[in-house]
Amino acid sequence: MKQTVIPKETVDGVIRQNGLKSVGQASIREVKKLINDVEKASGTHFIRMEMGIPGLPAAKIGVDAEIAALQKGIASLYPEVGGLPELKEEISRFAKNFLNIEVNPAGCIPTVGSMQGSFASFLTVSRARKGKNTTLFIDPGFAVHKQQHRVLGIPFESFDVYNFRGEKLREKLESYLSKGNISSIFYSNPNNPSWICFTEDELRTIADLAKKYDVIIMEDLAYFGMDFRHDISTPGVPPFQPTVAQYTDKYILFVSSSKAFSYAGQRIGMMMISDALYKSEFPDFKDYYNSTQFGHTMIFGTVYCLSSGTAHSPQYALHAILKATNEGRYNFVHETRIYGEKAHKMKEMFLKNGFYLAYDKDVDKDLSDGFYFTVGYPGMNSEELLHNLLYFGISAISLGITGSEREGIRACVSLVPMEDLPELEVRLEKFKAYFGE
Amino acid sequence: MKQTVIPKETVDGVIRQNGLKSVGQASIREVKKLINDVEKASGTHFIRMEMGIPGLPAAKIGVDAEIAALQKGIASLYPEVGGLPELKEEISRFAKNFLNIEVNPAGCIPTVGSMQGSFASFLTVSRARKGKNTTLFIDPGFAVHKQQHRVLGIPFESFDVYNFRGEKLREKLESYLSKGNISSIFYSNPNNPSWICFTEDELRTIADLAKKYDVIIMEDLAYFGMDFRHDISTPGVPPFQPTVAQYTDKYILFVSSSKAFSYAGQRIGMMMISDALYKSEFPDFKDYYNSTQFGHTMIFGTVYCLSSGTAHSPQYALHAILKATNEGRYNFVHETRIYGEKAHKMKEMFLKNGFYLAYDKDVDKDLSDGFYFTVGYPGMNSEELLHNLLYFGISAISLGITGSEREGIRACVSLVPMEDLPELEVRLEKFKAYFGE
Repeated sequence: MKQTVIPKETVDGVIRQNGLKSVGQASIREVKKLINDVEKASGTHFIRMEMGIPGLPAAKIGVDAEIAALQKGIASLYPEVGGLPELKEEISRFAKNFLNIEVNPAGCIPTVGSMQGSFASFLTVSRARKGKNTTLFIDPGFAVHKQQHRVLGIPFESFDVYNFRGEKLREKLESYLSKGNISSIFYSNPNNPSWICFTEDELRTIADLAKKYDVIIMEDLAYFGMDFRHDISTPGVPPFQPTVAQYTDKYILFVSSSKAFSYAGQRIGMMMISDALYKSEFPDFKDYYNSTQFGHTMIFGTVYCLSSGTAHSPQYALHAILKATNEGRYNFVHETRIYGEKAHKMKEMFLKNGFYLAYDKDVDKDLSDGFYFTVGYPGMNSEELLHNLLYFGISAISLGITGSEREGIRACVSLVPMEDLPELEVRLEKFKAYFGE
Repeated sequence: MKQTVIPKETVDGVIRQNGLKSVGQASIREVKKLINDVEKASGTHFIRMEMGIPGLPAAKIGVDAEIAALQKGIASLYPEVGGLPELKEEISRFAKNFLNIEVNPAGCIPTVGSMQGSFASFLTVSRARKGKNTTLFIDPGFAVHKQQHRVLGIPFESFDVYNFRGEKLREKLESYLSKGNISSIFYSNPNNPSWICFTEDELRTIADLAKKYDVIIMEDLAYFGMDFRHDISTPGVPPFQPTVAQYTDKYILFVSSSKAFSYAGQRIGMMMISDALYKSEFPDFKDYYNSTQFGHTMIFGTVYCLSSGTAHSPQYALHAILKATNEGRYNFVHETRIYGEKAHKMKEMFLKNGFYLAYDKDVDKDLSDGFYFTVGYPGMNSEELLHNLLYFGISAISLGITGSEREGIRACVSLVPMEDLPELEVRLEKFKAYFGE
């Protein structure tokens, strides 16, 4: 029996009311609002996979430390611009324990979420060298990073890495870098939205070319440790979170607290600037700043004038979480493993019902199960697929807004409760009955 | 007997070690570090007047509310980009109760300190109209606002208002505005560093010209209610905090929590965008943003990509403080009145010992006693005065770094404990004995 879960007219009516020309072009927050409205209009609860929001409670160690700090009276005192000294120490230890890299605490800087970290970095890096100020994005990626460029007027280029994995990556990267205008390369790993993870060979290739063309690597580790194929959770013991920092000494790493520690509400992320980059001198900074050293400029030039640093109490939270993690008293990877388990089950349901994985392999290995996965459906482009899923009470975002050249949607598992999985299966079966042969 | 409090060689040695060419050019944070070092080298405790830091404990209502919110679990949940709805309501009520203006809650936006508020505003306003993108500062002012312009590459012009008070202000402003490149006027009121407060006539002049030349007014109310000549602390009852918003409908007001509520640590400020400006359409936004409406662009274009909004728990703190203030249960003005009392005593000591007020009048009235005051000394320029005060264990900042054309220093009273006032008097007497006739 061919029937949608929600009457088509209801969904399409709400889309019109929201003034959206196309759900495939809608931003995540626009989709969120649309689904709220469709739920209200239809009385049907959606399987919500659009927002990349933590679905777990915040790390309790952090909350307790933050409360204690507030009770101590830190709310009246300006935080240091470069961050709480003891937090900087723990970030540095975390880098050693979980990435196996040495970063001086000076370059370990808390930011108002990784969002501020990337904004500050794009701004600073783009001012470092005249004529060499274009960011290269290895896509797909998080749309806001490009919005940050547009707002700042910083040029960028990008390509979808899907067809350039493994050996092909070198030539593709070199076709951009050889032009001389690229200041830096930005990517996320594990990748949002595709959940691809670069192999060590690929990371080495990126690093080699960065050195050859004097380019800064910006690596977004928002989903730290969530490639659950490897358990990186024991401090100081391999395996470690893979990172380009093993192979190059000019990098900035971004680690969000939002997903790893379920601490999205307090807007506290961290930047790790490599020692070599921190100490680098860029005479061209003079047009915009009072100093020419990268690290000093980042802190007292950029971060200071963005917000005078980061709220005090969340820094105490992050300090306590990292300290416990560094001492092996808290295992954030195991806390988040539930995401991988859900992804595994949900992927299977999609595949059983005629969907295929839009991104499926890390060169020769199956992708990990984690926070996101991507699916396509034969004969539907991203826009059509998303639109059609809405009729079946399932929401997601279109790969079209992520710089992807693949047709499909990104599904985020975090906000789907385990109890909803049977209903997801029913709806996917109805979808198949409706659209399948 | 002519003798300094600290041997000159000690002070000068530390200045050299700090690599400062001139203490008169040093930033506030450089002065702070210098004084820390001189205190260590000399063993002499300074009368510290350089940092504009609250000297009071944070408003307890805020701390309690923040703790309660953390216990409720808000640390894991992304805050809304435009701010907590109930906080937006209280900001709007605060505007009505203490400024006597109507601002829709939509335009009442919490930010990561007023620092982020001004950064976001400079960025957004400068993108609104091609060719009309230069900020005019009515100086003296806070140096970082100009640094924000430099970092962003936004042009600005400025003048010291000292010689253009009252009737002269119109002609001076018009000489800039008539050129057509000025997008906006920025000033603080009460003014940091000079503590001048514009008269209602002056505010009306600024507003008149803003309308005539279609210019946006950005008014920094960091020292809200601290013109203690008028007690504005009763909600909904005159007198109110003076504001340009009485006379023009295109404005952004900035209110910091750092001084008024002694809440500097949690980086929580607020912006109030007038309804007319919020709804204004600027087609030139298209080059940088996805929308053309000012308010939507500010929130979803700028604030979102700066930091995805403001940490969650401080928003609950501010909500509780404002609610209590709006309901007359908390009197933040009386809490901060101690600053005015100290300023009164400290000014007298300076005047008795040969100093004069660098900024002395609001047109025909004596300046208010408040958070800052300014003094000069006959025959010394700003640089020399600051340098000489260091020999006597007194620190401040040079007016030279504030856009002022007057010679002198800015003294901030907040970090000087009442118990230190007798020692301040002794040191000023020694200063006079050393340098006076």
